[in-house]
Amino acid sequence: MREAFHGDLKQLGRQLATMCESAAAAMRDATRALLAADLRLAEQVLSADAELDVKRTECEEQAYSLLALQAPVARDLRIVLAATYCAQKIERMGDLAAHIADTARFTHPEHAVPAELADAFTELGEVAAGMADRLAALVVAPVAGAFAELEEIDTRVDRLHAAVLARISAADFPHGPQTAASLALVARFYERFGDQAVSVAKRLDFAATGETPTI
Amino acid sequence: MREAFHGDLKQLGRQLATMCESAAAAMRDATRALLAADLRLAEQVLSADAELDVKRTECEEQAYSLLALQAPVARDLRIVLAATYCAQKIERMGDLAAHIADTARFTHPEHAVPAELADAFTELGEVAAGMADRLAALVVAPVAGAFAELEEIDTRVDRLHAAVLARISAADFPHGPQTAASLALVARFYERFGDQAVSVAKRLDFAATGETPTI
Repeated sequence: MREAFHGDLKQLGRQLATMCESAAAAMRDATRALLAADLRLAEQVLSADAELDVKRTECEEQAYSLLALQAPVARDLRIVLAATYCAQKIERMGDLAAHIADTARFTHPEHAVPAELADAFTELGEVAAGMADRLAALVVAPVAGAFAELEEIDTRVDRLHAAVLARISAADFPHGPQTAASLALVARFYERFGDQAVSVAKRLDFAATGETPTI
Repeated sequence: MREAFHGDLKQLGRQLATMCESAAAAMRDATRALLAADLRLAEQVLSADAELDVKRTECEEQAYSLLALQAPVARDLRIVLAATYCAQKIERMGDLAAHIADTARFTHPEHAVPAELADAFTELGEVAAGMADRLAALVVAPVAGAFAELEEIDTRVDRLHAAVLARISAADFPHGPQTAASLALVARFYERFGDQAVSVAKRLDFAATGETPTI
């Protein structure tokens, strides 16, 4: 019984890893679609998002049934609850990638990102997707200090986000208010993607130790 | 034992109601601070937000201990899990109100919102705070159809949000890219506040029935 339960927990971890991989792929494709004004790719990201929503519901149902049938306590209880929490956050990461793809779709055939900001958004996409890659490994094989590690990576996202905001808010920004408004939102989608990834890592540390990690 | 457990669930509902009341107050004060460029009020909202974070942690700990000690099943299990979910969403509503206050603080002594958009933001603040008021009642005395009810109110938030975005994206918007970028973000904070409120209502319906509500 106990062994079966731990097998179920491992299975939950693998489901979360698959979700992280989907979120990473969505982020990479959304960024490519945004920078290349690629309508077909943007639409792919948008339709793939529904799968992540389904996977989140499956994780949650699996966690419910473990709680109802096994009534876990202590660390096992924290792990099951963390799985529902993380599934929700990873689904949100997918939503944010989909919002980026939606901006690409909305501005097509125009480019949403002016050439002068292409490098910054390319890097935002790489760093953010890399965070989801790292979580895919951590949810199946947690290591101590996941929160500190992801928080460190997230400082790069925050720096890039701040640089983009500073540029589009400059008095000499030549691309007009519509582009400024659109890019403020897109940059925020990257920033929030990073924040969700950090909160997943934080919850993994909490599940392992019962202590809220600080850095 | 069973009676004590249901007393504990009621207590959890009251904690959530207090959180909703704080989120409603934060939204009202943040909107006043934003429209009046009131630095002191903005700072009050920002410092009050920490209390909501503490209350969320208390709700979560209370829910953990009910799960560990009582191992509820079926509807009782759904209600306990819904409480942790709702606590997190209501805390996020507080964060979003705090972001609005932060914009007021950042732009002080300037006004963040041009006069021509003051009515739209006033209404956004009223409707959003009203959603939190309604949730405060629903978490202690759930009624069927909460999701449909909040979703209906949220269409007003969505319409106002779309109108603000259209205005700041217009070629003749005279307040420059910085204001456009800032208002795109502020308008989104209201829209997300509404979304969180809808998701709380949806989860309350699910907790009551075990069915995900649709409209």
